[in-house]
Amino acid sequence: MKHARPSIAITTGDPGGIGPEVAVKALADPALRGRARCLVLGPAGEFEAAARAAGIPTFWTVLPAAGRALPGEGVTVLDDPVAAAPAAANAESGAASFRWVERAISMAMAAPADALHVDAIVTGPISKEAWALAGHGDFPGHTELLAERTGAAQHGMMFVGPRLRVILATAHVPLMQVAGCLTVERVAQTVELGAAACRRLGIARPRIAVCGLNPHAGENGLLGDEDRRVIAPAIARAVAAGIDAGGPYPADAVFSAAVAGRYDLVVAMYHDQGLIPAKVLDRDRTVNVTVGLPIIRTSPDHGTAFDIAGRNRAEDGSMKAAIDLAIRMTGAA
Amino acid sequence: MKHARPSIAITTGDPGGIGPEVAVKALADPALRGRARCLVLGPAGEFEAAARAAGIPTFWTVLPAAGRALPGEGVTVLDDPVAAAPAAANAESGAASFRWVERAISMAMAAPADALHVDAIVTGPISKEAWALAGHGDFPGHTELLAERTGAAQHGMMFVGPRLRVILATAHVPLMQVAGCLTVERVAQTVELGAAACRRLGIARPRIAVCGLNPHAGENGLLGDEDRRVIAPAIARAVAAGIDAGGPYPADAVFSAAVAGRYDLVVAMYHDQGLIPAKVLDRDRTVNVTVGLPIIRTSPDHGTAFDIAGRNRAEDGSMKAAIDLAIRMTGAA
Repeated sequence: MKHARPSIAITTGDPGGIGPEVAVKALADPALRGRARCLVLGPAGEFEAAARAAGIPTFWTVLPAAGRALPGEGVTVLDDPVAAAPAAANAESGAASFRWVERAISMAMAAPADALHVDAIVTGPISKEAWALAGHGDFPGHTELLAERTGAAQHGMMFVGPRLRVILATAHVPLMQVAGCLTVERVAQTVELGAAACRRLGIARPRIAVCGLNPHAGENGLLGDEDRRVIAPAIARAVAAGIDAGGPYPADAVFSAAVAGRYDLVVAMYHDQGLIPAKVLDRDRTVNVTVGLPIIRTSPDHGTAFDIAGRNRAEDGSMKAAIDLAIRMTGAA
Repeated sequence: MKHARPSIAITTGDPGGIGPEVAVKALADPALRGRARCLVLGPAGEFEAAARAAGIPTFWTVLPAAGRALPGEGVTVLDDPVAAAPAAANAESGAASFRWVERAISMAMAAPADALHVDAIVTGPISKEAWALAGHGDFPGHTELLAERTGAAQHGMMFVGPRLRVILATAHVPLMQVAGCLTVERVAQTVELGAAACRRLGIARPRIAVCGLNPHAGENGLLGDEDRRVIAPAIARAVAAGIDAGGPYPADAVFSAAVAGRYDLVVAMYHDQGLIPAKVLDRDRTVNVTVGLPIIRTSPDHGTAFDIAGRNRAEDGSMKAAIDLAIRMTGAA
């Protein structure tokens, strides 16, 4: 069966966090949900409770996750209830949110002809501690689970906001170990992954700026040699492969140039180098995209926020942006 | 003689750079120049040429720098002509721009009763290479010269923009050497210097956020131990001294919190951590302030820009902001 609109699986993330709330708030927008068939994987009870608290009338159908009925054309919640959803890391919630992500991945990996195939997945925030309590400590987060289940050889973290796109060469590494992780191979691969992701976003020939590691991009070696020794040869390799990449540029100047429209993507060498500008510019509208996977995966750029969960106080901007971007990455309008 | 308005010395910086142009453009605003008595130290020829190119009518008086006449109440150019001002680093320009900064410092250090005393100095961009060619290579920049001539025991680089104030614990250091430079003493001193500078800016009890060094501020030691081992005790020392400081906070979250008004100052651990958000938010309106000196010194946050010098293309926003801030730091309106 061929559908004109893409199908998107949305996991609610930890049932005690703000994930169910931001999912129902985001999908309450008819213009957004109308662009896709949306399958919500999570507990219908928490989804409904968040809707009631926000005064959102029912717009979805509930099917039991274990059943055999097929989702319709609108929003379907594949209900997998949890006994309780405390706003704190716990094993039951961790096991549930892990199960939902596993299922979303298998739906995305299913053959397109499969009635439960989805074209992209959007993941709500999980608690890493809850995953560990549930015995899934091998996976510090979504990305590692996605990489393992899809067999991705290489993958990267990219952040897409309204004014800036950034991809990271390294992520959760102590700052003083970053240089040790940066190789010509790794930086070049990051540029290549970023270029491929930009093309998927509809940018035929992305203009890519690569950050230096050191202040002033090392100032000709006076302030560190990684810029010349590692980053410059990696850029040369990407350019030789036909990519429009330049640098290494001083990181304190390159982001405003990108915002001004000179670059489609900035390649950052470490976590804070890329995330500081992304978040200071557009904290609530920046989307995390895992690139290099055989499937499309986006997520909002926030955590479970247990401290405000269940109070109808969560902002759905980043979740809406994540769903919007997932739909666009499938090639749909 | 007592003047109601403060006196400000403005050095043009390298005569072949954009310094004379941004100085004359900034002072062309009657509302700005009317708030102070302004002494421009530099070559009147280049100042006048930039004014002609920009269509700015003469608003200043020229006195020979070597003469004994006293400046008036408006803008006075203390003319120290150069034979030529090529848009490239050269010894003559380097010697001249060095001389002007030296003179501005001595005017600021002069007794208030001295007719040539100034209350603050604003420095236009110099070429470090030109200073080296002129035999002043011992001073890599303004800051080191200021520190030596004023006998400042400790000093720091602070950046003040319309939405964000940042002070750096380290500056021109290769990134992989930053942790080696961070001591409890140094971080605490930076917090204290920043607090004092904020009070000078009229913030009686500044709320200060201190960045972590590592991603997620080290995530309880999982991603590096400097946050707990060095930064946390430094914050404790500042708090014990009565300063409202908190952290270490994840650097990718703290700047948007500061922009939202939760903090008056962010203490960054390294150059790009502080300058990336300052420049991506307000590149043309951010001012560099040297804190910890016995005198007030601000400067625009850009270089000589030899590539666009002499073409009437330079933006004066940062120079205007630097003059405005210098005036405010004297306590004047």
